[in-house]
Amino acid sequence: MKIGVLGTGSVGQALATRLVELGHDVTMGARDPANPVAAGWAAAHGGGAGDFAAAARDAELVVNATAGSHSTEALAQAAPADGTVVLDVSNALDHSAGFPPVLTVPYGDSVAERLQRAHPGTRVVKALNTMNGDVMVHPELVPGPHEVFVAGDDEAAKATVTALLRQFGWPEAAVLDVGGLTAARGLEAAVLFWVTLRMAVGHNRFNLHVAR
Amino acid sequence: MKIGVLGTGSVGQALATRLVELGHDVTMGARDPANPVAAGWAAAHGGGAGDFAAAARDAELVVNATAGSHSTEALAQAAPADGTVVLDVSNALDHSAGFPPVLTVPYGDSVAERLQRAHPGTRVVKALNTMNGDVMVHPELVPGPHEVFVAGDDEAAKATVTALLRQFGWPEAAVLDVGGLTAARGLEAAVLFWVTLRMAVGHNRFNLHVAR
Repeated sequence: MKIGVLGTGSVGQALATRLVELGHDVTMGARDPANPVAAGWAAAHGGGAGDFAAAARDAELVVNATAGSHSTEALAQAAPADGTVVLDVSNALDHSAGFPPVLTVPYGDSVAERLQRAHPGTRVVKALNTMNGDVMVHPELVPGPHEVFVAGDDEAAKATVTALLRQFGWPEAAVLDVGGLTAARGLEAAVLFWVTLRMAVGHNRFNLHVAR
Repeated sequence: MKIGVLGTGSVGQALATRLVELGHDVTMGARDPANPVAAGWAAAHGGGAGDFAAAARDAELVVNATAGSHSTEALAQAAPADGTVVLDVSNALDHSAGFPPVLTVPYGDSVAERLQRAHPGTRVVKALNTMNGDVMVHPELVPGPHEVFVAGDDEAAKATVTALLRQFGWPEAAVLDVGGLTAARGLEAAVLFWVTLRMAVGHNRFNLHVAR
């Protein structure tokens, strides 16, 4: 699949690298077309690099791995075509007042819904934002059952994302569909819980399991 | 132990009933001293009933099981003595705009911290707010490992709460200390994630496990 990954941070790199390993045609996009991290990643892994628009051009799926507080501008620059699946893995964390961080998106809204409203012809799916980047693409790093949560209004787009998650190694039973895109509010709130657990657990390689 | 339970809802009833079963001296408190639910509970279970102040009088531990949006007024009426352990199990959910709900406490704060600031001589501990009332007091209702999270600034108060949790049936390894009272922000945010999961799971008898 032709995939654009927006964002050059650790999450963007983890996702882009895994997607290339799985045989996808991946372009990493940055705000600046000359971004050296994107160019370095592309040289090392055999993908493409460019600005956000270059990454999204002709892509069937665009991954938003930019910081959630800047994702609206990033996707505006990317300008994904109607029909594109937008997999939003972002969190709108604001660390400026210290720990614990807060979110820059108010209650009753989410980054994912903002992206969907700004690009109504695309099909936004929220997933993977409730865990660390390495766990996203290598769920086997965490022992025992644990889940990835998927929210979105387009069933076909959720199926596309679920198929990718299965390629990453997520078992079928570990992909939990939590409903429409308003459920992204709960998934994005979960990151505030995650950072709290992170302090208690002492490392990033954990994930949540819904015991039931 | 002499315990006051503030709140007559399903969570207050579940906690008060279990505490009586375990041999504690429990008074259920309501805003109105003539509240028929509190009186009915006391008659059925052998506890006491009264207003918030009556429930907190001479109590070593006060459980705040009122709705989080009204907990500040409830604890002001209860006026717990300095040194009292205040176990805050509340969530400040606002359902007025439909599903999903929002919180009435802004990012960067929590009900638990508000209670602590208003009653600096008490020792506030946040716990149990991340699950349904029946699971709080009967963790065996949920199969497999799953956890209860404890936050607070006073180690002795956390130990008192942890001992109660052990009486409820929580295994030692299932009580996860997540740090000081600012961690209550993350625990209270988790309820927005919980309500999202609730829709997907289809029932209330689930809980979170930190796979690691």
